[in-house]
Amino acid sequence: MTTPARALRLPIRPELAGEEPYGAPQLDVPVLLNVNENPYAPGPEVVASIASAVAEAASGLNRYPDRDFLGLRGDLADYLAVESGVRLSAEQVWAANGSNEVMMHVLQAFAGPGRTVVSFAPTYSMYPEYARDTHSRYIAGRRETDFTLDAAHAAELIRAEQPSVVILTSPNNPTGTALPPATVRAVLDAALEVDVDGAPAVVVVDEAYGEFRRDGVPSALELLAEYPNLAVSRTMSKAFALAGARLGYLAARTEIIDALRVVRLPYHLSAVTQAVARAALAHAPSLLGMVKELRVERDATVAWLREQKFDVADTDSNFVLFGTFPDRHAVWQGLLDRGVLIRETGPEGWLRVSIGTREEMTAFKDALVEVAGL
Amino acid sequence: MTTPARALRLPIRPELAGEEPYGAPQLDVPVLLNVNENPYAPGPEVVASIASAVAEAASGLNRYPDRDFLGLRGDLADYLAVESGVRLSAEQVWAANGSNEVMMHVLQAFAGPGRTVVSFAPTYSMYPEYARDTHSRYIAGRRETDFTLDAAHAAELIRAEQPSVVILTSPNNPTGTALPPATVRAVLDAALEVDVDGAPAVVVVDEAYGEFRRDGVPSALELLAEYPNLAVSRTMSKAFALAGARLGYLAARTEIIDALRVVRLPYHLSAVTQAVARAALAHAPSLLGMVKELRVERDATVAWLREQKFDVADTDSNFVLFGTFPDRHAVWQGLLDRGVLIRETGPEGWLRVSIGTREEMTAFKDALVEVAGL
Repeated sequence: MTTPARALRLPIRPELAGEEPYGAPQLDVPVLLNVNENPYAPGPEVVASIASAVAEAASGLNRYPDRDFLGLRGDLADYLAVESGVRLSAEQVWAANGSNEVMMHVLQAFAGPGRTVVSFAPTYSMYPEYARDTHSRYIAGRRETDFTLDAAHAAELIRAEQPSVVILTSPNNPTGTALPPATVRAVLDAALEVDVDGAPAVVVVDEAYGEFRRDGVPSALELLAEYPNLAVSRTMSKAFALAGARLGYLAARTEIIDALRVVRLPYHLSAVTQAVARAALAHAPSLLGMVKELRVERDATVAWLREQKFDVADTDSNFVLFGTFPDRHAVWQGLLDRGVLIRETGPEGWLRVSIGTREEMTAFKDALVEVAGL
Repeated sequence: MTTPARALRLPIRPELAGEEPYGAPQLDVPVLLNVNENPYAPGPEVVASIASAVAEAASGLNRYPDRDFLGLRGDLADYLAVESGVRLSAEQVWAANGSNEVMMHVLQAFAGPGRTVVSFAPTYSMYPEYARDTHSRYIAGRRETDFTLDAAHAAELIRAEQPSVVILTSPNNPTGTALPPATVRAVLDAALEVDVDGAPAVVVVDEAYGEFRRDGVPSALELLAEYPNLAVSRTMSKAFALAGARLGYLAARTEIIDALRVVRLPYHLSAVTQAVARAALAHAPSLLGMVKELRVERDATVAWLREQKFDVADTDSNFVLFGTFPDRHAVWQGLLDRGVLIRETGPEGWLRVSIGTREEMTAFKDALVEVAGL
């Protein structure tokens, strides 16, 4: 391109001026434990199924995809029935290109200008961005020092702020904390008392890491029949080791799903994405076997960190928040210098490590021993 | 799910209440000429390349995709250089899940509450939806009775409305009309005089059907070097016969692209989508050979319709707007009854038919002869 004839100014929105694109650094490092990916790549059988499903889809790619993708939605409902014991219809499931897009659909339908979204910090750092990008007001309540959520504080905040959408994260990112059902119920009850143009608040429980919860910790899916204002979001990124395929989904009443259908872009989910997701879902038992291994490794990592006298947040996820360090950046950098990338996130002084393979966790522990001078 | 314990009200946004999800009917009919799809399915070599590329990507799907996808963006830039003669860098190209999402990025970055988007009707029916979903004000100027755009009217409207984004569609959907460079320049010049918080308006020329333009009709890509406020959007849906894969893209200054990067959801473009698009781009010469056939078939269809004394809009696209009918719905229904699905769209009395294979166009013509009593 030649030199511009005219200088460039742009009408970028004022709230975006100077903002940087969201995202953790994508560095080329031997041990990647920074973005809660599943360390187990899809095996040869899964790869073969995906390739075969895509080859079949490819021969019809000149046509637009199935806009309502009830095939995939039915497969996701079947999977949730096995995973959680809660039986839903295809029409009670929604999906999009990652939980990101699912959550944007929720805020586009139910939040927006003049409306408020409530969540509880520390939590997933994308929520304020969803609010910003939908021009919703964002209010963060607090979690306690042990990262649990105080039900009375949550209910009081909801009464005071009258949000149209409440986001609960269970297990929470970056702390790993799962919410007990009594807390979720208290929030749902408070949300039902909200009056936004005569309607209650919608509560989304973000269960992106739901499959990693410990035995005996229930899913909010079990509350769907009881609470009409509940939606539960999930993803195939973590448990299904499919972060690269971008498939997030959400379970709720059909009335909620129908509202999301109004704001979705037509044909938002490609025929290829639909084919990949369905192929992977057919391998759910073997893929979830790896989840079991990661849970064991997670619990072992928590135990080891506590043996070293670190503070460690209870975790039902595939990552561990630990600390605290007077200079966490130095620890993060020391690990990176030793080829181990973790995440500098969460409250001041804490660090987050994703659970990798046994070998990767050994590398992490060895590096931490050196860096922290244990 | 059991019967709800509580009745359901939802805080759906007032402007969405009662709205239906966008989209043409997806009917199972022998001859589909309703949504401007390319009738030629990807051939065996393309399917094999796609399957192989996806198999390779699949073995790394546990990792998030390359967030900046400069490989794909470079391939798209290379393709545009061949197609239009305009050489861009990878950083001057952006992509998303369909032109829909590309355009949403543009409006999220540059339009939104308190700002205005201008386009010229009759045109693509999604533009008002993009504006609605970003809370932008939408103003439609007019096209003339022959569907051309009067440059003086366009400039005057831009002066009066002070939009932050102007959308030109060339070739226009549903009319097929390409804009002469002088008109595009007049709009760009008027847009440069706009003052939105001290910045000019961004002009997006939507060239979704750009590859189907007739010989001698230039692309707005040729104006990129001259106008800093210009962006040109394209898609792989039509020319590359890849509607099912959802890949839209946009060429502009890096400063414009950088603004889009701030509002894109992280990892919005899956590793699979990137692999599929790159595999198809490697087959550009053979895929574009089919475009040439479709252009010939398009011109033959226009000639035949004019021989039958229909009004036919000049078209640089892969569809033809023709009419006029006192009861166009009856004609549409009559064609559907004969297994030919076209689109009831455009100004009252007109119908739009997408260009299919020679056999499909024969079926269309035979059915139309019957229905219109020719």
